Amino acid sequence: MTTATAQLTAATATAQRHLLLNMTANGSLGPDGEDLLIVQRGEGPYVEDADGRRYIDGLSGLYCCQLGYSYGPEFAEAAERQLRELCYSPLWTGSAHLSAIELAERLSRIAPVDIEHTFFSSGGAEAVETAWKIARRYHAMRGEPGRTKAIARRGAYHGLTVGTLSFTDEPGLTEPYGPPAIETRFVSNTNRLGLAPEFADDDVYTAWLLAELEVAILGEGPETIAMLIAEPVQNRGGCITPPKGYWQGLRALADRYGFLLVADEVITGFGRIGEWFGGDRYGARPDMVTVAKGITAGYAPLGATLVSSKVTEVINRPGAVLNHGYTFAGHPLSTAIALRNLEIMERDRILDNVRGLQDDLAKRMAALKDLPIVGDVRGTGFFYSCELVGDLDDGGFSSKARADLIGDLIPRRLREAGLLARVYDRSAPLVQIAPPLISDRAVLDRIAAIIAGTLAEASARI
Amino acid sequence: MTTATAQLTAATATAQRHLLLNMTANGSLGPDGEDLLIVQRGEGPYVEDADGRRYIDGLSGLYCCQLGYSYGPEFAEAAERQLRELCYSPLWTGSAHLSAIELAERLSRIAPVDIEHTFFSSGGAEAVETAWKIARRYHAMRGEPGRTKAIARRGAYHGLTVGTLSFTDEPGLTEPYGPPAIETRFVSNTNRLGLAPEFADDDVYTAWLLAELEVAILGEGPETIAMLIAEPVQNRGGCITPPKGYWQGLRALADRYGFLLVADEVITGFGRIGEWFGGDRYGARPDMVTVAKGITAGYAPLGATLVSSKVTEVINRPGAVLNHGYTFAGHPLSTAIALRNLEIMERDRILDNVRGLQDDLAKRMAALKDLPIVGDVRGTGFFYSCELVGDLDDGGFSSKARADLIGDLIPRRLREAGLLARVYDRSAPLVQIAPPLISDRAVLDRIAAIIAGTLAEASARI
Repeated sequence: MTTATAQLTAATATAQRHLLLNMTANGSLGPDGEDLLIVQRGEGPYVEDADGRRYIDGLSGLYCCQLGYSYGPEFAEAAERQLRELCYSPLWTGSAHLSAIELAERLSRIAPVDIEHTFFSSGGAEAVETAWKIARRYHAMRGEPGRTKAIARRGAYHGLTVGTLSFTDEPGLTEPYGPPAIETRFVSNTNRLGLAPEFADDDVYTAWLLAELEVAILGEGPETIAMLIAEPVQNRGGCITPPKGYWQGLRALADRYGFLLVADEVITGFGRIGEWFGGDRYGARPDMVTVAKGITAGYAPLGATLVSSKVTEVINRPGAVLNHGYTFAGHPLSTAIALRNLEIMERDRILDNVRGLQDDLAKRMAALKDLPIVGDVRGTGFFYSCELVGDLDDGGFSSKARADLIGDLIPRRLREAGLLARVYDRSAPLVQIAPPLISDRAVLDRIAAIIAGTLAEASARI
Repeated sequence: MTTATAQLTAATATAQRHLLLNMTANGSLGPDGEDLLIVQRGEGPYVEDADGRRYIDGLSGLYCCQLGYSYGPEFAEAAERQLRELCYSPLWTGSAHLSAIELAERLSRIAPVDIEHTFFSSGGAEAVETAWKIARRYHAMRGEPGRTKAIARRGAYHGLTVGTLSFTDEPGLTEPYGPPAIETRFVSNTNRLGLAPEFADDDVYTAWLLAELEVAILGEGPETIAMLIAEPVQNRGGCITPPKGYWQGLRALADRYGFLLVADEVITGFGRIGEWFGGDRYGARPDMVTVAKGITAGYAPLGATLVSSKVTEVINRPGAVLNHGYTFAGHPLSTAIALRNLEIMERDRILDNVRGLQDDLAKRMAALKDLPIVGDVRGTGFFYSCELVGDLDDGGFSSKARADLIGDLIPRRLREAGLLARVYDRSAPLVQIAPPLISDRAVLDRIAAIIAGTLAEASARI
């Protein structure tokens, strides 16, 4: 056993004994069970594991490393400056610090129209919890405390805290935690795979989606709906883009029935699809926007809820205490790193990199549709999913094919070929990528080629 | 107007226009309203505002800056090393990084008996959310999905997310957010102020508290209780310490009735009362411990849920996926900073500083009881509250006295004298301190003297 291997084995054993990993069968890790991938360092769009193997990080960590891994020295400089000046100050009961003030101002300049204020937190779930509490407060202060329900979309994910878990209808995530804390009505997401041919027309599909939503609103009682939450491109279910006119329709219904429209941009924000906010691409005009992940390019934990003036005019009435908060809300280290990230993204024209390469990536991904195992390719920007079809007449997988291909061959081959991508084997079977936004054409080509090779091999086995 | 003052005015105006502060009347900030305190730098136990005024930080930021403000260069070095090596890696679906593994192992060495595993998050509320979900999961996997209720203590605070807010019975925090997401039964906290004289005896008081708790458990049905959550020293209500035997009694009832015992150490952990965990002082043997704040000495956002082997033996059964997580759970920057904090706390003997000075601080704080406005002094370690009594026959304050003294004179005078302390004017009227654990005798003396002077002046006005 080499020294590196021995260290790796020791680290794996220590992790097993002391660490509880997220969304993991922790009791099955280890020498006789599933592999633990210990990521040790990064460079550009690549990460290297503790055994020295190098991978393209096709998932940007977890949809957050917009800049990849080589900006450490610049962020370290920003961190040092902040930690030497002021390590911490709360944004609590009338106390604040300059870095959070500057970032809030900076965000207002890139935020969707009418959005001027930011409430900081430490991550996406906290940002969505904040949006919910602000929505409740807004309605209560306007004399509508009966607006207690949410609308979310089927298959969506907005976080795993007790509150945000209410916006998810996936039993694999909600069980065994009991009924949802927030009464939520689920409506269709915008995945038209498997729908009748007439829905290929955007006008027809949008009209149908909005009609379904309006029926749901009227069924629940418009006076009971506090907010609707939706991602501009829904991550879960596989990079589901909206049809033309959809976000304009959401805005119109929100206005007509008085609920707030929340764009969850935790994944789509900060350049993932070539814009500061994914909703910009679709003409979204939300009342609130939730962000996290890419706001720091993953270099520090930070979340934020961006709030429109329509809402702050109500919740900021003189004397009204906003009774919500987090100790680490807008931590100076995190806000300093987010500010540096926004500087770097502008200076190094990161959005332009996505805009310049996205059409090429779109073509390469679309070409995967020719493979027998690929049922659909969805996505935009640097954000794509292949939905797989299997060996059954209805396009599904037999449990054997699912275990062999989705559970074993595909993830194994991708990793052997040096690509970290997401392979879903519980929901719809998917291979998903969200590469760092600094990836060049060669890296994107390599990602597409690895997926093509892997899915070609898998196609031969169904 | 000086340049510094002009900058401060500009920053305040920017904050008003773009930032939503926590627990603040955001619409009342500004030139004609309430002051915004912009903290700009720190040194030792002191912070300085943007106008150059210096204060003793008597609240350690928000109960988190255990080391005060002069360790920036050391933490910057740790941050730089981590950011250059690896800026981010998830603890998600079988992926991990060395810094989180090392910290989990390190925590197991100082954690209460039988606690070996850690689930990381980014703050206290997320840590408590995790404890709740793990408790539900533990019971469901043992065939008791009907354990869906929590027990918490009156006046306590465990976070402001939808889930954790359930563990608080304070209308000022829970309204207008509707009924609690988690059905929670509230029992007495351990504040004996105002109780009959026989409760001065610890044995009598503990027996009474545990009897009340057992009645509550039997009333709800023991088979419906998932967990009890309590702080070793309850923060809200004013540094409420437990009587002798209380935590042993909680352990016995948890064992007898099968629920899990959760010690919320977000405030009491990492030296606040002279021990790594506050519960150590009281013989607590919890099934889970929630921490945040002091784990990084406030230098980065991090939360953690420490879980006993009794629990992990169930939830880590082979193949069982722990379906919970946060993208920024155990962020490498935060875990690297926490590791450095633990090294520094040991090297610089921070716990010994608290242990060496706490008796002296206790005497100084107890002496405040002689002032007419002081009804009670509670606390331990570097963590004290004075509960104030007013001008009414029952010890309460007339609304005029409350506005004049609690709402104005006391906080103003403390700040003028150069002390940041917490003055509660909504719940029981309190002056509270939780100074940095690096404070020396002179700083603690100065804190006590400022409070004594302020409360003497206030006493003369009731």
